[in-house]
Amino acid sequence: MGSLRHLRVGCEFGYDSAIETPAVFQVQPYEGGPATLMRHAWETTPQVERHGYTDLYGNGCQRLNLPAGASTVRYDALVAVPDATEEVDLDVAETAVTDLPDDALHYTLPSRYVLPDVLADEAWRLFGAQQPGYRRVQAIVEHVNGHLEFGYGTSTPLTTAADVHESRQGVCRDYAHLAISFCRALNIPARYVFGYLPDMDVVLPPAEMDFAAWMEVYLGDRWWTFDPRNNQPRKGRVVIGRGRDALDVAMVTTYGAPVLKAMTVWSDEVAGAG
Amino acid sequence: MGSLRHLRVGCEFGYDSAIETPAVFQVQPYEGGPATLMRHAWETTPQVERHGYTDLYGNGCQRLNLPAGASTVRYDALVAVPDATEEVDLDVAETAVTDLPDDALHYTLPSRYVLPDVLADEAWRLFGAQQPGYRRVQAIVEHVNGHLEFGYGTSTPLTTAADVHESRQGVCRDYAHLAISFCRALNIPARYVFGYLPDMDVVLPPAEMDFAAWMEVYLGDRWWTFDPRNNQPRKGRVVIGRGRDALDVAMVTTYGAPVLKAMTVWSDEVAGAG
Amino acid sequence: MGSLRHLRVGCEFGYDSAIETPAVFQVQPYEGGPATLMRHAWETTPQVERHGYTDLYGNGCQRLNLPAGASTVRYDALVAVPDATEEVDLDVAETAVTDLPDDALHYTLPSRYVLPDVLADEAWRLFGAQQPGYRRVQAIVEHVNGHLEFGYGTSTPLTTAADVHESRQGVCRDYAHLAISFCRALNIPARYVFGYLPDMDVVLPPAEMDFAAWMEVYLGDRWWTFDPRNNQPRKGRVVIGRGRDALDVAMVTTYGAPVLKAMTVWSDEVAGAG
Amino acid sequence: MGSLRHLRVGCEFGYDSAIETPAVFQVQPYEGGPATLMRHAWETTPQVERHGYTDLYGNGCQRLNLPAGASTVRYDALVAVPDATEEVDLDVAETAVTDLPDDALHYTLPSRYVLPDVLADEAWRLFGAQQPGYRRVQAIVEHVNGHLEFGYGTSTPLTTAADVHESRQGVCRDYAHLAISFCRALNIPARYVFGYLPDMDVVLPPAEMDFAAWMEVYLGDRWWTFDPRNNQPRKGRVVIGRGRDALDVAMVTTYGAPVLKAMTVWSDEVAGAG
Repeated sequence: MGSLRHLRVGCEFGYDSAIETPAVFQVQPYEGGPATLMRHAWETTPQVERHGYTDLYGNGCQRLNLPAGASTVRYDALVAVPDATEEVDLDVAETAVTDLPDDALHYTLPSRYVLPDVLADEAWRLFGAQQPGYRRVQAIVEHVNGHLEFGYGTSTPLTTAADVHESRQGVCRDYAHLAISFCRALNIPARYVFGYLPDMDVVLPPAEMDFAAWMEVYLGDRWWTFDPRNNQPRKGRVVIGRGRDALDVAMVTTYGAPVLKAMTVWSDEVAGAG
Repeated sequence: MGSLRHLRVGCEFGYDSAIETPAVFQVQPYEGGPATLMRHAWETTPQVERHGYTDLYGNGCQRLNLPAGASTVRYDALVAVPDATEEVDLDVAETAVTDLPDDALHYTLPSRYVLPDVLADEAWRLFGAQQPGYRRVQAIVEHVNGHLEFGYGTSTPLTTAADVHESRQGVCRDYAHLAISFCRALNIPARYVFGYLPDMDVVLPPAEMDFAAWMEVYLGDRWWTFDPRNNQPRKGRVVIGRGRDALDVAMVTTYGAPVLKAMTVWSDEVAGAG
Repeated sequence: MGSLRHLRVGCEFGYDSAIETPAVFQVQPYEGGPATLMRHAWETTPQVERHGYTDLYGNGCQRLNLPAGASTVRYDALVAVPDATEEVDLDVAETAVTDLPDDALHYTLPSRYVLPDVLADEAWRLFGAQQPGYRRVQAIVEHVNGHLEFGYGTSTPLTTAADVHESRQGVCRDYAHLAISFCRALNIPARYVFGYLPDMDVVLPPAEMDFAAWMEVYLGDRWWTFDPRNNQPRKGRVVIGRGRDALDVAMVTTYGAPVLKAMTVWSDEVAGAG
Repeated sequence: MGSLRHLRVGCEFGYDSAIETPAVFQVQPYEGGPATLMRHAWETTPQVERHGYTDLYGNGCQRLNLPAGASTVRYDALVAVPDATEEVDLDVAETAVTDLPDDALHYTLPSRYVLPDVLADEAWRLFGAQQPGYRRVQAIVEHVNGHLEFGYGTSTPLTTAADVHESRQGVCRDYAHLAISFCRALNIPARYVFGYLPDMDVVLPPAEMDFAAWMEVYLGDRWWTFDPRNNQPRKGRVVIGRGRDALDVAMVTTYGAPVLKAMTVWSDEVAGAG
């Protein structure tokens, strides 16, 4: 076992609901590794029943009803992560579609926010002539990273990859949607990843959120992590879930219109295992 | 066992490809019932290897490589179906979201072609005041059936439910996408179904295709069949698969640009079981 | 939401291993309800990486390597459970095999410890003439409860239902294996359940463990809880997992021969949610 | 694509039932490759409804009710198989348990007929000193092949691997159960495979059945085929399904006691694809 470091990750939501409102939360770390979930706690005030299930994508979901009136939902976890920067291999080849595993094909199709069909011409124009493989995906990441300007409030729940390609503005999920669209347009399987992204051994602008979206791309014989928003290998990503796009791994889905009064997210290194 | 009738269903595709082209076909009847698959045969000319797999949605997929040059892919099946019109129950209630089974929630979300988010206001304006339940879904079906004009060539692979709501033109998949969008906007789980639709005991215009798209809606404690294109209970539907929208149950998905030279589909009653 | 009560459940294992030893733990509460997992913590001393996965049965498994030398593994959770005794309905009918859902058939087959094939004659002799339904299963439970004498150390990892039928001695898992064997011999789907069983509102002999095994039987249109060891409806069962028999939901599976030096299990009501 | 050859595989069962009897058949070729299912046909006389489902193991099952009185169930398929002998690599290493994929662990456990727990000492005595890897599994296969004498009627539905180890007699499923037991005792994942085994390019004794059981063993990073009964690499195996042991891939499971009056199985090379 390599060296481990520890993170405190979590989030708190304050709601005001006119009526009892069903909700699904996807905020627990994925337990398949490499992060080890050491402890966690849910607190809902007032207390309500809650149950977990695994969705089509294998993501953990927690389902509860927000009570009428004011309520808070708080999730707090301690995780151990390897003290290692994620792997990069510029020389990995693309896998011909004919050799892709059956279950990777799902991630070549368009979805609500990821539009390889609309952006196909642009993808081929920009990246079609490049040598297939890791470097071509890296070129996509660099293009998207430079093409978009980061800005909270520049996109909405209706904003697609085609929209941000046009507006040149977005948040991390928009960066991911655009880069994934380009990959899929080139028949490279790419999936959306949502998680906690701590600032281990990097210095980030203070405004940055601790929830983050990035992508995994199938090259060679496995999935590789790329981050179109930050465009640098990192330590300590804590995956929450994966899917076709942001809809499949939504932090919160509510069936009704509770007012979100406050939201806090954390993802901080802590000294011990504590 | 009730009385059974027999259908010959199938399809044939003629391609011309510049290069070998990976393809996935979803044309085999779903084996979970009520149709019984009695025999079937695949013929690819020239002959190629093919294998089957089950996707995320449990749909059967067949994967092969179309060879360079001219090729044909032919699928032909004999199925037995109950001699019974599909069930209708105008009095079934909607299920409150809080009581929906976990795996139905997937079908409340937007997807590539189904846009309950964009069409939410319209859905609530048109159907929000109606009594929840089977009758409300029937009202959606009737609205969509009247709102759209059927026409081949009026929609493209980029056409969403919002587009057809605007253009008022489409084919059966567009009818389904629009009706499903309205259901999901009202938090009623609805899924897209693709299959063979024979003309058992009904008289249809001769131009109608034998592939068809319809929808299933979760009411009470199960999924019910509704057909926004035809708006009448039928006999003999042969389901191929189900999913969020047409992308999840595509007749053919190709990874490349083979020229489709010819396509035939059949779904005809035959006298005996032979 | 009904009234909730709170339990502290967990376990601690002390090992001494000659070499690093892979191990799988199944001790986390099942998250599908009705218990709500509020918080939990793992502690391994020395600290090691661990990851979770879901097995064929949907059970949560945690996989780690016990280090060479002395080590401890501790799991501690706080759960909220409904303040309600589990449901009983003496009038529920058996479901004819032809009407069973496909996935219930798995639980009609023999398995390592559950031997409906060996015990078929005995099952039909004892219970074949009884009216099918909940009462017949209750008769099986009562028979097993009276036929066996509880005793730690009376069975081994090789002991089958046929063995305990003969020896008339066993622990809770043996009671479950025998009752499940009789159910399956009568073509009634029955599955093994492993979990924490607190003594809420009952007085139990002090020697009783807090891990327990019981069974679920498919009657009418769902699974019902029966407890051949205790033979009384209870409050607060916390399911860990379900399977064909004890092998599918083993508290710990080790690949090697670490010495288990100490083991403690707890399942106690606590006053508040804290 | 390599060269393909064609097989006709199938089976026919004649029953006489006092009452309508639910039954599950597992006789269709697995569609995941390398065999390509080109056509198949079911015939039940008298005709009955039937539906297919996929079990926990991903095996295709067909479920129907045998009617009261005389009935026949016939399945006939044409498959294309590669003209290639299955792969052997004497130098593949065993995978340490710690490096096994999560889903391989299921195949290290005991099951109804496979008893690595009972046969552990024997396994370690015979094979514990050998160099881990393909050659050790080959030694197991050779031992079992020599230890047992083939004979129809020497085993029953109650016969375990420990029984045949003792009796030294069995049919192909017993050979498989014993070899799988030895593998699992050594912590090598091994699973039971059931299928059609044609005599392509080999000469076999005329009494041999066309249904056969063999095993797959996880070595290196994938599953490898071994055949304890025949102990030679073959061409044209057509897998029906895989599981822990013969119970998970039973040709037929009936819920009742119909009299099997006749049974025929075929697995023959045919000249063309027609």
